[in-house]
Amino acid sequence: MLLVGVDLGGTKIQSVICDAERNVLGEDRRPTPTAGGPPDVADAIAESIATAAGLAGVAMTDLTSAGVGAPGQIDIAAGTVSQARNLPDWVGSYALGPELGQRLGGIPVALGNDVQVAVRAEQKLGAGRDVSSFIGVFCGTGVGGGVVLGDELWLGRGAAGEIGHTVVVADGLPWAGRRGVVEAYAGRAAMEAQARERMAAGEESRLLEIMEAKGKPRMASGVWAKALKVNDRLAMDLVDRAEWALGNGIASVVNLLDVPLIVIGGGLGLRLGQPFVDHIVSYMTPQLVKRDDPPAVVLAELGDLGGAVGATLLPPPN
Amino acid sequence: MLLVGVDLGGTKIQSVICDAERNVLGEDRRPTPTAGGPPDVADAIAESIATAAGLAGVAMTDLTSAGVGAPGQIDIAAGTVSQARNLPDWVGSYALGPELGQRLGGIPVALGNDVQVAVRAEQKLGAGRDVSSFIGVFCGTGVGGGVVLGDELWLGRGAAGEIGHTVVVADGLPWAGRRGVVEAYAGRAAMEAQARERMAAGEESRLLEIMEAKGKPRMASGVWAKALKVNDRLAMDLVDRAEWALGNGIASVVNLLDVPLIVIGGGLGLRLGQPFVDHIVSYMTPQLVKRDDPPAVVLAELGDLGGAVGATLLPPPN
Repeated sequence: MLLVGVDLGGTKIQSVICDAERNVLGEDRRPTPTAGGPPDVADAIAESIATAAGLAGVAMTDLTSAGVGAPGQIDIAAGTVSQARNLPDWVGSYALGPELGQRLGGIPVALGNDVQVAVRAEQKLGAGRDVSSFIGVFCGTGVGGGVVLGDELWLGRGAAGEIGHTVVVADGLPWAGRRGVVEAYAGRAAMEAQARERMAAGEESRLLEIMEAKGKPRMASGVWAKALKVNDRLAMDLVDRAEWALGNGIASVVNLLDVPLIVIGGGLGLRLGQPFVDHIVSYMTPQLVKRDDPPAVVLAELGDLGGAVGATLLPPPN
Repeated sequence: MLLVGVDLGGTKIQSVICDAERNVLGEDRRPTPTAGGPPDVADAIAESIATAAGLAGVAMTDLTSAGVGAPGQIDIAAGTVSQARNLPDWVGSYALGPELGQRLGGIPVALGNDVQVAVRAEQKLGAGRDVSSFIGVFCGTGVGGGVVLGDELWLGRGAAGEIGHTVVVADGLPWAGRRGVVEAYAGRAAMEAQARERMAAGEESRLLEIMEAKGKPRMASGVWAKALKVNDRLAMDLVDRAEWALGNGIASVVNLLDVPLIVIGGGLGLRLGQPFVDHIVSYMTPQLVKRDDPPAVVLAELGDLGGAVGATLLPPPN
């Protein structure tokens, strides 16, 4: 059995080829196209899978099935993705499952919500495997989350898990139509918007210089990590604010659900690593009801590959 | 079968005598003693039950069992209540269950968390009976809550449901060792503290006059309701802030758990009624991810008696 897993994000496409035990035999990572539309994204995914298969030394015709974790609204039965605002020109609904299946020689392609897929990976194979309940917090272009309660991913009426839309400052910073939500401070897109605004207003920063030196079109997670390394004041300030917002938002969730574990993932979370986690904890703890019995807060164990490996866990479409 | 239910709050003791179908045959409501200690509270509860039984026309010797919803930390097996900061001089742990049982001729007395008891009453008999998931938000001396997910009260590691400790203004108003939590704006004790502070600083208000006219030692829910009626500016401002904090805190919870229903209860919620709910909704809705598919927000159906009737649902101690 050779399984394909794809994590489709606003910034990158990550593909893996796994065996039945979810050992990664080959992988490929490439930027998500910034121009074009859904078919171009489907093309890029298929190319990424072909590269990963090549590195794994397996033929495309030997692949059993594929799973894709995607942003936006997923219709699992129809294999469609809609409202994927982090993807280029993704207007309306696109049948990514069937379209990608065609490009892969007709194998079944299952779709799942990108964050839910990453949470399930941590639940089954990663940091959450020894607990029955935890909250996953994934900081990337946006801030997504997943709520695992009693061994089940809690979906509510289908849209649960939006810890990025937890309010931490009522009447605070406007973002995506809401005000003062965690993502307004801790999502990379929001952080970049604020960095650019403050630089335009005269604040000094090496963020753009680092971004260009890395050949990135956007302030990717590695750009923020590098800026912290060179003690860039603006970057330090915005990352501190992200940690503060996450600490407060996570405290709210812990006070509400009293879970034993928080798993921090996503590109920004993983790149900033343990210091990021430690700072989040230091903002979270004073806001807890049970300050003397806080939850463990740890990094996602599957790292960058979590979303893609998690996508191999998606049940095939019928 | 004649069941006794008691809602022990920071402000009042509410007792009911119910039949097996939870019809209320008699009830009594009296202020929680403001002086004395736990034994005086146990005496007052026993007197309240005797009064309710008299009104129901039943003999104390005919009572089958009793349940008490209490604040603080409950040890169900031991029948003890500790850390009940809203009760007078309740230092350490007190065996309320056995002590009250003695005063009631030896019938079994079950204890439960006051808010959880009220939530369960709404779940089984009230506003939540037709849904499998909802959040109860109870505004009284403090702001308590309960999370019902898939027909189960979610307790986490034992302390879940603290929607009153959801952060709505990180670095906001200090309260109970945290900052900017819902209860700092929407709990009656916090609202009274702020009203007194602002009056001391020269703001005019009729709150104290109304409180005294009602013969209340504290700004009870009825005092706030009356102050709104006479367009008291300070009261209107503090109630508006409570609605704003609740709207934002509830939005966070809905974005996280995507439940179909929010039930607003507690003395303050019930006394301020539908306008309070409507204002909370108007603050909540703009902060929702699914603004076009918001949850229903309704008043607790069992009203003032919910906690007491809910206490009759507690399983007897073994």
